[in-house]
Amino acid sequence: MSLTRVAILGATGYTGAELLRLLLQHPHVRVTEIVGQSKAGQKIGAVLPGLAGIVSGDVATYDAARIAKSADVAFACLPHGASGKIVAELHGLGMPVLDLSADFRLRDPKVHAEWYGHDDAPELRAKAAYGLPELFRDAIRSSALVAVPGCFPTASTLPLAPLFEAGVIEDAPLVIDAKSGVSGAGRVPGERTHFAETTEGFRAYKTGGSHRHTPEIEQTLARVSGREVRVSFVPHLVPMTRGILASAYVRPKAGIDAARATELARAKYEGSPSVHVLEPGACPDTLWVRGSNRAHVSYTLDPRTGWLLCQGAIDNLVKGASGQAVQCFNLLRGYDEGTGLGGAAMWP
Amino acid sequence: MSLTRVAILGATGYTGAELLRLLLQHPHVRVTEIVGQSKAGQKIGAVLPGLAGIVSGDVATYDAARIAKSADVAFACLPHGASGKIVAELHGLGMPVLDLSADFRLRDPKVHAEWYGHDDAPELRAKAAYGLPELFRDAIRSSALVAVPGCFPTASTLPLAPLFEAGVIEDAPLVIDAKSGVSGAGRVPGERTHFAETTEGFRAYKTGGSHRHTPEIEQTLARVSGREVRVSFVPHLVPMTRGILASAYVRPKAGIDAARATELARAKYEGSPSVHVLEPGACPDTLWVRGSNRAHVSYTLDPRTGWLLCQGAIDNLVKGASGQAVQCFNLLRGYDEGTGLGGAAMWP
Amino acid sequence: MSLTRVAILGATGYTGAELLRLLLQHPHVRVTEIVGQSKAGQKIGAVLPGLAGIVSGDVATYDAARIAKSADVAFACLPHGASGKIVAELHGLGMPVLDLSADFRLRDPKVHAEWYGHDDAPELRAKAAYGLPELFRDAIRSSALVAVPGCFPTASTLPLAPLFEAGVIEDAPLVIDAKSGVSGAGRVPGERTHFAETTEGFRAYKTGGSHRHTPEIEQTLARVSGREVRVSFVPHLVPMTRGILASAYVRPKAGIDAARATELARAKYEGSPSVHVLEPGACPDTLWVRGSNRAHVSYTLDPRTGWLLCQGAIDNLVKGASGQAVQCFNLLRGYDEGTGLGGAAMWP
Amino acid sequence: MSLTRVAILGATGYTGAELLRLLLQHPHVRVTEIVGQSKAGQKIGAVLPGLAGIVSGDVATYDAARIAKSADVAFACLPHGASGKIVAELHGLGMPVLDLSADFRLRDPKVHAEWYGHDDAPELRAKAAYGLPELFRDAIRSSALVAVPGCFPTASTLPLAPLFEAGVIEDAPLVIDAKSGVSGAGRVPGERTHFAETTEGFRAYKTGGSHRHTPEIEQTLARVSGREVRVSFVPHLVPMTRGILASAYVRPKAGIDAARATELARAKYEGSPSVHVLEPGACPDTLWVRGSNRAHVSYTLDPRTGWLLCQGAIDNLVKGASGQAVQCFNLLRGYDEGTGLGGAAMWP
Repeated sequence: MSLTRVAILGATGYTGAELLRLLLQHPHVRVTEIVGQSKAGQKIGAVLPGLAGIVSGDVATYDAARIAKSADVAFACLPHGASGKIVAELHGLGMPVLDLSADFRLRDPKVHAEWYGHDDAPELRAKAAYGLPELFRDAIRSSALVAVPGCFPTASTLPLAPLFEAGVIEDAPLVIDAKSGVSGAGRVPGERTHFAETTEGFRAYKTGGSHRHTPEIEQTLARVSGREVRVSFVPHLVPMTRGILASAYVRPKAGIDAARATELARAKYEGSPSVHVLEPGACPDTLWVRGSNRAHVSYTLDPRTGWLLCQGAIDNLVKGASGQAVQCFNLLRGYDEGTGLGGAAMWP
Repeated sequence: MSLTRVAILGATGYTGAELLRLLLQHPHVRVTEIVGQSKAGQKIGAVLPGLAGIVSGDVATYDAARIAKSADVAFACLPHGASGKIVAELHGLGMPVLDLSADFRLRDPKVHAEWYGHDDAPELRAKAAYGLPELFRDAIRSSALVAVPGCFPTASTLPLAPLFEAGVIEDAPLVIDAKSGVSGAGRVPGERTHFAETTEGFRAYKTGGSHRHTPEIEQTLARVSGREVRVSFVPHLVPMTRGILASAYVRPKAGIDAARATELARAKYEGSPSVHVLEPGACPDTLWVRGSNRAHVSYTLDPRTGWLLCQGAIDNLVKGASGQAVQCFNLLRGYDEGTGLGGAAMWP
Repeated sequence: MSLTRVAILGATGYTGAELLRLLLQHPHVRVTEIVGQSKAGQKIGAVLPGLAGIVSGDVATYDAARIAKSADVAFACLPHGASGKIVAELHGLGMPVLDLSADFRLRDPKVHAEWYGHDDAPELRAKAAYGLPELFRDAIRSSALVAVPGCFPTASTLPLAPLFEAGVIEDAPLVIDAKSGVSGAGRVPGERTHFAETTEGFRAYKTGGSHRHTPEIEQTLARVSGREVRVSFVPHLVPMTRGILASAYVRPKAGIDAARATELARAKYEGSPSVHVLEPGACPDTLWVRGSNRAHVSYTLDPRTGWLLCQGAIDNLVKGASGQAVQCFNLLRGYDEGTGLGGAAMWP
Repeated sequence: MSLTRVAILGATGYTGAELLRLLLQHPHVRVTEIVGQSKAGQKIGAVLPGLAGIVSGDVATYDAARIAKSADVAFACLPHGASGKIVAELHGLGMPVLDLSADFRLRDPKVHAEWYGHDDAPELRAKAAYGLPELFRDAIRSSALVAVPGCFPTASTLPLAPLFEAGVIEDAPLVIDAKSGVSGAGRVPGERTHFAETTEGFRAYKTGGSHRHTPEIEQTLARVSGREVRVSFVPHLVPMTRGILASAYVRPKAGIDAARATELARAKYEGSPSVHVLEPGACPDTLWVRGSNRAHVSYTLDPRTGWLLCQGAIDNLVKGASGQAVQCFNLLRGYDEGTGLGGAAMWP
């Protein structure tokens, strides 16, 4: 199998570092570019001490022309807003790009403008594949640009998509009560992620329908169901580093229970190297997927009230970001989809 | 102000220990009985090392006659099922009792039988006041037996009751997605609370409408609204020791928004020494109430979907158990309701 | 008992907030000034959400003349270096001050200059009492300025002082391996205290004899022993919010074992409202003192090697800062030393 | 490269589960036996939920004859005391065994008897290689039984061995103040590892020279130095799941500083796939090695007191147990020493 030379842009943040961890173990990859901005020129082992003694050299500066020569594919782990131009530039040089930012995820320019304002690359965004392999495998294979989904949309969409696709959910505004570990907020320190005010505390944030992952979830569920979908998405911060648990509450159509939902999901995800559908009524735990590219999905019906609880658990930095990007990369390059991603969760 | 002699039964578990911490600071209380079962005969300072050098003597065995002589009021911090008989015995000896178990919370014998099976004291249960002072202050004052609410019902009911009482919520099965710290599971070690499998993990438990706090919430909301209420209650375990955040999703009637809900709650809880209603859209944090008898309540409308998020945050061991018991005790004994409970949260 | 009007300077940091929590419960105190700098003008309940609904009003700006009128005593919870001038100014206006910074702790100007450089108030520093009540009770009572000790020196000195005073330790460079919760680093976010890089990590910092608490420990042990003392002090960061455990390793003189050390410490701390000496060989736990002004001290001899392990556990924000300041304040004002500080640890 | 068929005994505990995680990714291994005792007959994916959907089948019962046929090599992850007989039985059937228990670590029968009492296999113990590859590579290669070191001895010995071997440390009783994450206590719940009493608490345990890892450290340092060594080993429990930091305090001989110690360690560990020696004065963090088979080692001199601080950080379940076992296995089977172990730490 031919080797792919890979560039990582934004390699010193959490998703960039996680990509490095994964790609250094990938049998068909050679990481040729470790690019950062604020930390450029510093030793990689100093910026990412877990790599001290494993990876030598300095964090490189961004230079599109150099990268286009030294690498075959680029992963962009840049902040929303900063990614668009750089991705466009690399795309213009003929490089396939896997973009982990939000800049290319929303296809409708109006929706993108409403939630993000800026719009650096509307034409390019129309061409991007949405990098959720379990739903859009073929599009990813043939795309030159993959917009890798956000962590919340991945955890939320995986349990819901099979039911929306099968048309077994009543039309009604959907509630998704989601919980995320703190690493989702990134590497830049702030009050919200200061240890002493985070540990032993639990809270919601960006309530009132204001979290930008909302339209991403709506877009995907609309695509698979063919209908407009409205989601009330409420994120919470869990005093732990990694992991997302999304608890979605839906009204199933008559006759649909947890067993039937489980069947639909198992049929949908058969053969997936990443998604595992638990027994009906089981409760996934983020610890069981931590450090892995696994998603645990489950369904539970409350017979007293008729609500169907659809849960998805992932590691936000792996299946919710960097692992999923590698999964898309494998499809793009014709490798087996799970290559370099077979590892089980780190437990405990 | 006259002094009350107090007995604590089950003093070595988490709620018992928390009661001791609070009552030792209460200006009108003398704790005369520290009673345990499995740890009887051991030094108090060995069983509860935080009290070493503060409280001397051994954990006492249970003896109703002795306790009826040495104490004026009893707090029972016993497991569900074990409390009923003991409370009945002390009640028979003329002692006012504050019971922290579930044995006297559900008034309808059929509902009690359905959720708990055993029924040691049906007549007595009919006489018990439900110890949520903000809603049932007068009944608590004149009752000889107070059934102190569970932690989840307190966190869930406080934000919802003003809206149900005012009739501004649509009839529909309600979703309460609740999150609890691990101390709610008590002092007995088990797989579910083993450190290495709890920290850095997040999961739901007792899903499918099976958690026994469900009928308690339904009972209270029905009492204040005069209508039957059905709740889908889904508890989650947060990797932290103390705190509950309940996120309830309701459909408000036309014209009801977060500002109006906030007004209703502020009117309802005016003068309360415990409940604080945040500004509309604010997000309570369990860390802000930890160690205190405070409840933080807030309301947020998602204008895109029409869902009204009603949140309540408490410390499960204080406002969700022992602090609330002291609050009820103050009412029962004619002390100012907040006596001994004025402390702010331990932050950070 | 007469009421004392109190000003808190730097009230919005962790030690300031903890002082507020304690003083609001103090029966002889009225807090008349809540002063901050970076947060001046903001609502107290917004800056310290645990006080929302308890304390109204805004964070005040610093104004020495106003404070001297409205308060009888000031507590300064300011950063090292910033405290000196302000304390001198209030002292000049005749106000007794309890200073929680390091600016007045080291008596020898040369030692102060060596470790801190700046020296805003050398004369005043010579007059300050060192606020460790268990060792310097009388000096604190009659002092107009109390330099409240640092958290590490308190945890380290309490177990060692009785042995140094009794002359039962061999002269030799002492090793103190100390461990602190993260709140010791204060409220300003930084890489070192970012949740995702703190939880599930453990590390030393400021090694090589560079931590500024070193000379404070040496000064106190020299004072009680009458000999020069050299300490190798190595702090570590524990992924928890509160608590310090100091493990000091000393060579006892012939015939001195853990039982004898325990006797000496119990004799020294008899009647103390704060220090509890555990049985020989017992291991204190920071959780047993969290949220309280308690110090747990213990001694263990390793008979195979002759090392005597002397341990002290405190809550860094209470006995290691704000609680100890209140203890000094009580002495200064003639109140019972433990007033407002009797509470047991918050456990669990 | 030929494939090795591997049996894991005690596969459902923490070290067994970690071995499975590692060996499932090892390119030259096929795991043919997943054996447990208390969980035999249960589905692997139920007992180890992280493996659900990855490994099918049930946990097998122990059967020496069957295992000798189906596997080429056995890893024993059994409790101390339980391992001896089983290892002897498999050894008798001609199977190379990597034993993670303490049963074969101490070579001197008197020392073994003193610390462990039982002695199931004295002759076999004399033949076992001590599985610390960095020190005893050749013995491991040619041994039929490898006694894989404990977690504390690995973290403690790696920084100390180069200095003891070079004879640059003064003879004197050594202090090792070590800190471990909670997973070291295993999967069986207990008071010591109950979440609510572990998080936010820090404490020592097994003080007074009583921890059984003491003689292991002394044995290794004696072997490399040719002199008897006495260690005062004091373990502490850190509220985190994985990681050990050992802080050893030694008196260096004249002229030996951190730079020289660093040189000696770098020379000793040159070419090691696991040990990385940090710059003089740097502080290793357990988070930087978590989930990896890496050890970070560093040296810091306190010039004021002359103490040399020697630190080692590892993941107790990887380099302190299962990863080290795989490293030994690679030597035993002639694979490259780092095969299947190249992964960087999971960070953050």
